[in-house]
Amino acid sequence: MTTVAIAGIAGRMGRSIMSVQGEFRDIQITQGVVGSTPFHGVDTVDDASKLNPVDVIVDFATPRGFSAALAAAVRNKSGFVSGSTGLSDEQVEELAAASETIPVLLAANFSVGVNILEHLVESAAKAAQGFDIEVFEAHHRNKVDAPSGTALFLGEAAARGRDAKLNDVAQWARQGHTGARSDEEIGFQVVRGGSVVGEHTVFLLGAGERIELTHRAQDRAIFARGALRAASWIAGKAPGNYTMRDVLFS
Amino acid sequence: MTTVAIAGIAGRMGRSIMSVQGEFRDIQITQGVVGSTPFHGVDTVDDASKLNPVDVIVDFATPRGFSAALAAAVRNKSGFVSGSTGLSDEQVEELAAASETIPVLLAANFSVGVNILEHLVESAAKAAQGFDIEVFEAHHRNKVDAPSGTALFLGEAAARGRDAKLNDVAQWARQGHTGARSDEEIGFQVVRGGSVVGEHTVFLLGAGERIELTHRAQDRAIFARGALRAASWIAGKAPGNYTMRDVLFS
Amino acid sequence: MTTVAIAGIAGRMGRSIMSVQGEFRDIQITQGVVGSTPFHGVDTVDDASKLNPVDVIVDFATPRGFSAALAAAVRNKSGFVSGSTGLSDEQVEELAAASETIPVLLAANFSVGVNILEHLVESAAKAAQGFDIEVFEAHHRNKVDAPSGTALFLGEAAARGRDAKLNDVAQWARQGHTGARSDEEIGFQVVRGGSVVGEHTVFLLGAGERIELTHRAQDRAIFARGALRAASWIAGKAPGNYTMRDVLFS
Amino acid sequence: MTTVAIAGIAGRMGRSIMSVQGEFRDIQITQGVVGSTPFHGVDTVDDASKLNPVDVIVDFATPRGFSAALAAAVRNKSGFVSGSTGLSDEQVEELAAASETIPVLLAANFSVGVNILEHLVESAAKAAQGFDIEVFEAHHRNKVDAPSGTALFLGEAAARGRDAKLNDVAQWARQGHTGARSDEEIGFQVVRGGSVVGEHTVFLLGAGERIELTHRAQDRAIFARGALRAASWIAGKAPGNYTMRDVLFS
Repeated sequence: MTTVAIAGIAGRMGRSIMSVQGEFRDIQITQGVVGSTPFHGVDTVDDASKLNPVDVIVDFATPRGFSAALAAAVRNKSGFVSGSTGLSDEQVEELAAASETIPVLLAANFSVGVNILEHLVESAAKAAQGFDIEVFEAHHRNKVDAPSGTALFLGEAAARGRDAKLNDVAQWARQGHTGARSDEEIGFQVVRGGSVVGEHTVFLLGAGERIELTHRAQDRAIFARGALRAASWIAGKAPGNYTMRDVLFS
Repeated sequence: MTTVAIAGIAGRMGRSIMSVQGEFRDIQITQGVVGSTPFHGVDTVDDASKLNPVDVIVDFATPRGFSAALAAAVRNKSGFVSGSTGLSDEQVEELAAASETIPVLLAANFSVGVNILEHLVESAAKAAQGFDIEVFEAHHRNKVDAPSGTALFLGEAAARGRDAKLNDVAQWARQGHTGARSDEEIGFQVVRGGSVVGEHTVFLLGAGERIELTHRAQDRAIFARGALRAASWIAGKAPGNYTMRDVLFS
Repeated sequence: MTTVAIAGIAGRMGRSIMSVQGEFRDIQITQGVVGSTPFHGVDTVDDASKLNPVDVIVDFATPRGFSAALAAAVRNKSGFVSGSTGLSDEQVEELAAASETIPVLLAANFSVGVNILEHLVESAAKAAQGFDIEVFEAHHRNKVDAPSGTALFLGEAAARGRDAKLNDVAQWARQGHTGARSDEEIGFQVVRGGSVVGEHTVFLLGAGERIELTHRAQDRAIFARGALRAASWIAGKAPGNYTMRDVLFS
Repeated sequence: MTTVAIAGIAGRMGRSIMSVQGEFRDIQITQGVVGSTPFHGVDTVDDASKLNPVDVIVDFATPRGFSAALAAAVRNKSGFVSGSTGLSDEQVEELAAASETIPVLLAANFSVGVNILEHLVESAAKAAQGFDIEVFEAHHRNKVDAPSGTALFLGEAAARGRDAKLNDVAQWARQGHTGARSDEEIGFQVVRGGSVVGEHTVFLLGAGERIELTHRAQDRAIFARGALRAASWIAGKAPGNYTMRDVLFS
């Protein structure tokens, strides 16, 4: 049984983690860290420094909460799993320093399916020499930017499989007289509409055949599930800096 | 048995029609009109005015050949099926005049599947109030323009179902900070790669559900098949101006 | 503004209708009928005979509740929309009698998308002569029967488009030496896994091309939305027996 | 430049290889072995023992031709690529013996795309713990057996990723009261219709998300292309027994 504390338990991800924890028989969430929002269902403290020792601290707190949660993990020799974004340079250094003494994992997207797909896309892009690569994504009508972060994440994996930088080869739009497609370009297509949670397909288009690698998200709890899978995996690992790819493929 | 003459029999469409004629037991191709290219496999004449009377003349000739073929159809009271594009104003008038005395059908795309889909798209766009519409297409790496004519054909059907003009609502690209989607817009997505013959999906994206209407072409003989299906259908019809929709849905 | 009363408001569908009513600006839910389960959020009565007059009664009650709700609708000249299944012969007669004096609509599936697709499938099956028809469906891992009711609903529409009875032409499985496919058969494919809410594709497979007509459900609120759309449509209609197809395509 | 001789050059695969050789700038087909069918376009001999030395012999001959082609490869220290099926026990031993002195590769399916997908499927099945696996395939109306060999090939890869035997876990059909799905089962779905060359999707269906891995074949020349890619790769390799996976992923 892996004991876990959640920093930011009253936030959207924290509550999502609580709602799926029952699916993980080997995990026990013992405590949470809250800011000003009260939270019921598990013991909470108002500062990560007050947490009892646990196997893993999972952090979806504010940027300020990140440092406190990381410090608590280092002090207690806990594993550390974080979905924090927008870290300062100082916090990036804190994380690097922490990875000398505890196992840490920072990810922008915890979905098991997206992370598996990302790995497959890189493998396929490398193996399918001469196939043209395109990245399609669809999201709900209220999404305000394009392409999605996940589409870029997959596009970067494809570019890496071709020893290219995505920014050098991305083709964001095609309209009018475009001319024939170049070998290197990676095209993006963006659908917006309805309530689509998030869907992505990477096409590898060859002469006479093609491969399509698709992920479809149905609800946002998949990020919570992936975070708990990472927590379960990282417990007891050697100090170091890990990724979701390590969780899924090692 | 419907007797058919092909104007432009030595061209790409003419030869394609010859290659699929065996699938149509009720059609007999009795003659062809050729320009300078010789053609074997059926009797040919070098001018449509020399054709023996047939039930239907199918025209995939040059613009100049169009007028001769149409005149022959009028003289012989044949049905007239044409895939000619780029008609002059004068030729458009010739066709209108001919439709007073013979049944005529002019189409830009003879694919049975595309024309069925076009009709479904208009119906669905009308019925699915509040659903967002997007049009996706994929073609081979050497296609030099975008979106495809078929994507525009389907987009126009969708717009018609919403009492809108496609040009007023088309959204050709999305990148960067796009803001939320508007209700009316019809987005287009363009994939280019490999040897894809032509694929189109119209998405109707609603709250909690969606409809996807897809056509996939595997070879270009589908245009020849549709033209023969039109020829078979138009034989003996009353004078008038018909469309593929009449062939398929009446 | 259409006033609506919900019979069975404390049941799954009743609560789902309450959760989406805010999306319908022209509908006001004024009362509900409950059995033994208490319900908050709208005035309730314990028998439909006690309802105040409304424009439409929407019935998702128990079979016993059905008759009381229908009688109330007849008495108050309300429209009547019902998703009740397993009606007795007597109740079927009650409904027929009611349709002489009020507009009634009974449906097994209220999804707007599924009902649109069903209509498209019949049209396409009719128009796409010579195309082979197959019906694919996917549902979550806990579904205990196959194929889904919706797959059969779509298969029947396809069969109707071909002037056939589904039972005469359905092909439930293919394994081993099957021999070539017959022209008439309609094959079914069943995927079970994960948490898929419900997805259906009808394939129309021709020589060199194909059409795929797909519906994807994301949540079960789509049935509630369709029921309210039916309620909004039926208010003030002439007496008679209507279907979702009337709601969507007339 | 890799020199290649084709055993069985007048057969379907031999002719297909000749038709795509122009796409491979680093390959020169210098000779072919024919049986009784004459073949034009390259020098031919009537027995593999008469071939001039080449870098690689590609064998798509009859079973009898296989042994002669293999013997010629061993004698000339050529690489050996074969698509022969139905080898006798003796021939299997010949191949094993040959692999001591030359590099050999025997494959049932040379499609680059299918072989890439097969590898991805095994990886994904392993990584996506708790996801349900299903294998969908579609082929033309005249295919007489089901599921396709490729569907089984992919199903075996999925089973291997789960440390299972496909025969123990395959679920060939679902109809009627099936009960809930088991964790281990791998379901198969078979579409037959039209002129579909061959399409396969492996679904990995999890809680709240899914992965779909698809291959679509457009023409049968993909097998010829894969065989030439294997020939190009195997030239100059150390003696041993190789697979398409080695060609694509090493």
